[in-house]
Amino acid sequence: MMYPLLEKIKEPADIKRYSVSELERLAKELREFIVATVAENGGHLAPSLGTVELTLAMYSVFNFPKDKLIWDVGHQAYSHKILTGRRERFHTLRQKGGITGFPNRAESDYDAFGVGHASTSISAALGMAVSRDLSGRKNEVIAVIGDGALTGGEAFEALNQAGDLGSKLIVILNDNEMSIDKNVGGLSDYLSRIRITPQYNKAKKDMGNLLMSIPHIGDKAFRTAQVVKDSVRAALVPGGIFEELGFHYIGPVDGHNISLLQELFERVREMDGPILIHVHTKKGKGYAPAEMEPDKFHGIGKFDQQTGKCPPKTGAPSYTSVFSKALIELAAQNSNITAITAAMPSGTGLKAFGEEYPNRFFDVGIAEEHAVTLAAGMAADGKHPVVALYSTFAQRAYDQLMHDVCLQNLPVTLCLDRAGLVGADGPTHHGAFDLSYLRHMPNMTVFVPKDEAELRDMLAKAVSMDSPTAVRYPRGTGRGVELAAGFQDIPVGKAQLLREGSDVAILGVGPLLYKAEEAAELLQQQGISAAVVNMRFVKPLDEEMIRRLAHVKLMVTVEENSIAGGFGSAVAEFLMDSGLNRQLDLLRLGLPDKFIEQGTQEELLTLCGLQPEQMAAKIKERLN
Amino acid sequence: MMYPLLEKIKEPADIKRYSVSELERLAKELREFIVATVAENGGHLAPSLGTVELTLAMYSVFNFPKDKLIWDVGHQAYSHKILTGRRERFHTLRQKGGITGFPNRAESDYDAFGVGHASTSISAALGMAVSRDLSGRKNEVIAVIGDGALTGGEAFEALNQAGDLGSKLIVILNDNEMSIDKNVGGLSDYLSRIRITPQYNKAKKDMGNLLMSIPHIGDKAFRTAQVVKDSVRAALVPGGIFEELGFHYIGPVDGHNISLLQELFERVREMDGPILIHVHTKKGKGYAPAEMEPDKFHGIGKFDQQTGKCPPKTGAPSYTSVFSKALIELAAQNSNITAITAAMPSGTGLKAFGEEYPNRFFDVGIAEEHAVTLAAGMAADGKHPVVALYSTFAQRAYDQLMHDVCLQNLPVTLCLDRAGLVGADGPTHHGAFDLSYLRHMPNMTVFVPKDEAELRDMLAKAVSMDSPTAVRYPRGTGRGVELAAGFQDIPVGKAQLLREGSDVAILGVGPLLYKAEEAAELLQQQGISAAVVNMRFVKPLDEEMIRRLAHVKLMVTVEENSIAGGFGSAVAEFLMDSGLNRQLDLLRLGLPDKFIEQGTQEELLTLCGLQPEQMAAKIKERLN
Repeated sequence: MMYPLLEKIKEPADIKRYSVSELERLAKELREFIVATVAENGGHLAPSLGTVELTLAMYSVFNFPKDKLIWDVGHQAYSHKILTGRRERFHTLRQKGGITGFPNRAESDYDAFGVGHASTSISAALGMAVSRDLSGRKNEVIAVIGDGALTGGEAFEALNQAGDLGSKLIVILNDNEMSIDKNVGGLSDYLSRIRITPQYNKAKKDMGNLLMSIPHIGDKAFRTAQVVKDSVRAALVPGGIFEELGFHYIGPVDGHNISLLQELFERVREMDGPILIHVHTKKGKGYAPAEMEPDKFHGIGKFDQQTGKCPPKTGAPSYTSVFSKALIELAAQNSNITAITAAMPSGTGLKAFGEEYPNRFFDVGIAEEHAVTLAAGMAADGKHPVVALYSTFAQRAYDQLMHDVCLQNLPVTLCLDRAGLVGADGPTHHGAFDLSYLRHMPNMTVFVPKDEAELRDMLAKAVSMDSPTAVRYPRGTGRGVELAAGFQDIPVGKAQLLREGSDVAILGVGPLLYKAEEAAELLQQQGISAAVVNMRFVKPLDEEMIRRLAHVKLMVTVEENSIAGGFGSAVAEFLMDSGLNRQLDLLRLGLPDKFIEQGTQEELLTLCGLQPEQMAAKIKERLN
Repeated sequence: MMYPLLEKIKEPADIKRYSVSELERLAKELREFIVATVAENGGHLAPSLGTVELTLAMYSVFNFPKDKLIWDVGHQAYSHKILTGRRERFHTLRQKGGITGFPNRAESDYDAFGVGHASTSISAALGMAVSRDLSGRKNEVIAVIGDGALTGGEAFEALNQAGDLGSKLIVILNDNEMSIDKNVGGLSDYLSRIRITPQYNKAKKDMGNLLMSIPHIGDKAFRTAQVVKDSVRAALVPGGIFEELGFHYIGPVDGHNISLLQELFERVREMDGPILIHVHTKKGKGYAPAEMEPDKFHGIGKFDQQTGKCPPKTGAPSYTSVFSKALIELAAQNSNITAITAAMPSGTGLKAFGEEYPNRFFDVGIAEEHAVTLAAGMAADGKHPVVALYSTFAQRAYDQLMHDVCLQNLPVTLCLDRAGLVGADGPTHHGAFDLSYLRHMPNMTVFVPKDEAELRDMLAKAVSMDSPTAVRYPRGTGRGVELAAGFQDIPVGKAQLLREGSDVAILGVGPLLYKAEEAAELLQQQGISAAVVNMRFVKPLDEEMIRRLAHVKLMVTVEENSIAGGFGSAVAEFLMDSGLNRQLDLLRLGLPDKFIEQGTQEELLTLCGLQPEQMAAKIKERLN
């Protein structure tokens, strides 16, 4: 057996029978198993390596799934998945039909809450805690949240209520000093200060004093102490922020010390009320390349297990990198341009912008709401901020886009990376709804480039405009088209006819247009003449172009977005409004009105019927 | 002159010439002026009465509009409006074409940022502060935020970045111990503890010590102190939470003491970096009825100035009160029902639920994101939570609805009050988009009752379902229809034919159906036979009913929601998808794809062309 201790585990309760030294060996096995799998499949490596001992300590003390464990974001939960009946299928991680990359209620009873977006765990855990209290049950509820996810406002909202409500709740702050990139913000500085206190260094050697500071059950006086007492405590115990909010703070403790964690958890089981345990871990722990470059190994594709090297990138540049370079060029021409990321300098490509223009670059932490209102504030003062977010995470800022940007008609440019199907990260990460949620925002202009060259030009146009704009583009490599020097003008609301045709007009947005062109070619071979139009804008819609093509029998819309309320919906509205409905039909192709599973982008496009042959067949069928 | 000192002010700079005792008299005039106006027009009285001295002190020290002043939410900004050129038009407050109820960039240069939704001010102010720094300007940027708005996560996200970034920024925490109702949460408890410290009581009498605690310019050592020093300071100075995040904390100070505030602001102008001034004010100050019942006088309709009494309510019960009673009835039958509000127990009608079922009621503060994920956590543990929010504020929880509720297909019922046009509160408060943003959420069922009787039945149905549901209903009084005992079953996705007709079929949702029926009557008189259908559900759509009525020449959709992506859009999609487009036309009536101004609900319906005569005329025109 390659993993003797791991393979002996039939059910999670078996972990309780292992001694501390066996658990330490098991930790080593888990790390090797995780590294080997992720090297093949890609995945969230560094976060999961950092929580191995924490996971083992929790499973050796608590009784899951009766006790409830909620991982914030969930990219640190691979050990948890492997230990809870998913070891043998773990090689299918992130593949179509395989084990999902995040906790998922449909996959296991041990996954108490589905996650993927940050900062939700304390809210969900509190919901389960009050539900338990109402039902008169006694189980524990544990939220594990990173210091990165703690910068999200929702986490604070939850701490604020939980501290006041007093229900028993265990929050484990998994502090690895990182978000995906280096963590930022005042809270992060605060946690750093705590980590350098004498208490912490003492605790690492001797946990006696630490445990002494934990009151026993019923010691409620601790909580109701006077201000003076509170302040004295603040001087003696770090974690004052959490204490002030009503939590009992314990820490910081070494998150790789299994026996310390076990004793702590045993003690905490006997306590009452909301408790925050501050655990210090190392992201990438135990795998040297990940320890050295935890940001690169946060979420990674295939790599060589021995060297930690990824296969060399070949082919076209990614949309992200084209965006990155274009924005730096534009910022050289226009000093009003600023750039904002929500904890994703690498992922969004803004890292290079920050190196070029450090004063004009802002990483706000995992805080999409603040990112957008911050941009609105800058725009109200004369700047043109570019906010780069992943499409799915921009959902967090729906209200700020509507109320702070669009209502005031401010020149903020939203750049939505990972729009459409993202592949292995699955339903929590697909950017399936942005065209639907942006299209009904008044004053908004929505650009959709068909390739990386158009992304450049559209970005240039967007930052030249004096109103809200959004540019959405997919995850992954571009088409490899030539990137001209400078920028071509893209007239707002004007489509581009890519191919003439007389029977059918395919109206598309985004890179799916390349597949649409292939579909048109297939139709041509079957005697059906199909025009193809790059609509470029979902809002405003080029109504003139649609009228021009109204001689066809059938219009077809193609989009990598939900067909509910998306681009095709805008075309349906126009056709019915204009009366063109009487002379032609519409076939709307896009993502179905349901959540799409994980798989490669191509597999998922097939699943959604968006491959050229599938499009051609559907068009032919609809024509008959 | 009724208001001699106030009427002498030609421009805000004139305030600087008044002595403290004149300002104190001016404060009295302002209060009288505000009370007199709000007694006539309705408005946000108690918050604005609490900030009179604060406003005067700011205007006597700072140089607006060169300095930037951002009021969080903005319901406390009436003095600010009156002092900045809007006194003579103030009697038009909240009326169509009149002075708006919230700061508004389009209305005055002194309104640096448009507001209405909570917790945005620090984000926007920080954006203006970094923009100023990039431009090499020197103006001050000031955010005034209430202790209620501080519970919103976005405010924390902004504090977290601002504390770290170090730009000069003044945040005034206007602590009146209230949100709209009593403030809740750990932070609120914390602020209470600060207020009872000996320092505060001393400061009220003697500001010397307080000012001594403020460092002079360049005293950066204060900020970079070691942890031990930090902790000692925490013992001596309240406000540790803000200090830990990187702010210089000053306070608490009496927010009604003009000379104290003036000296403080003068001193703060000379300081650098982010500063938080904790000001303690009394909501409703100076008007006895509002001091006694600050929640009632938070936002109020017409009232008698002498007695503070509102005219007796006549006519039908409000949708809110019908919802309130129905939920209490349903909760008696189903012990799994819980109820959640985001700082709106009175506004949403859940206060009565909380009195009946205190353990099953949760006020989370101004924290819509947390409210929804908390509900998802409860639902994942077997409860059926009902989250009651105003439609416009639910926009804050778009991502949580999508990612935590719909993706996991959890039984959470969202009750959206104030859906559609709300009237005097204007564009920041209209619930104009919920049908558009809910319709593209997979697994969601969207109920729209046509009157208060249907609201009861739909609520009963929604809480009986095992999947995500939303019920949206308007602000104001119901239709006065009879409320039967018990609950009638409403089959999901089934429409109700209200009136037969052969030429036209009007498909409507919500109370606009009553106007649609009047329109049908008007058409009848002109020889046009119009069916009227209460569609009841925007999702799923009753496609069978639409097919049944497909013999008409024209279908008409009627909704109090944006026509972009809303109910009419769903019908347009279906007509084009089904091929019915070839045999009939569609006219979509609803709110136009732009932000709608303030006015009475009826005035705004007229503006949008949604009165019976207008509908009938448009239908007739479209038929020809």
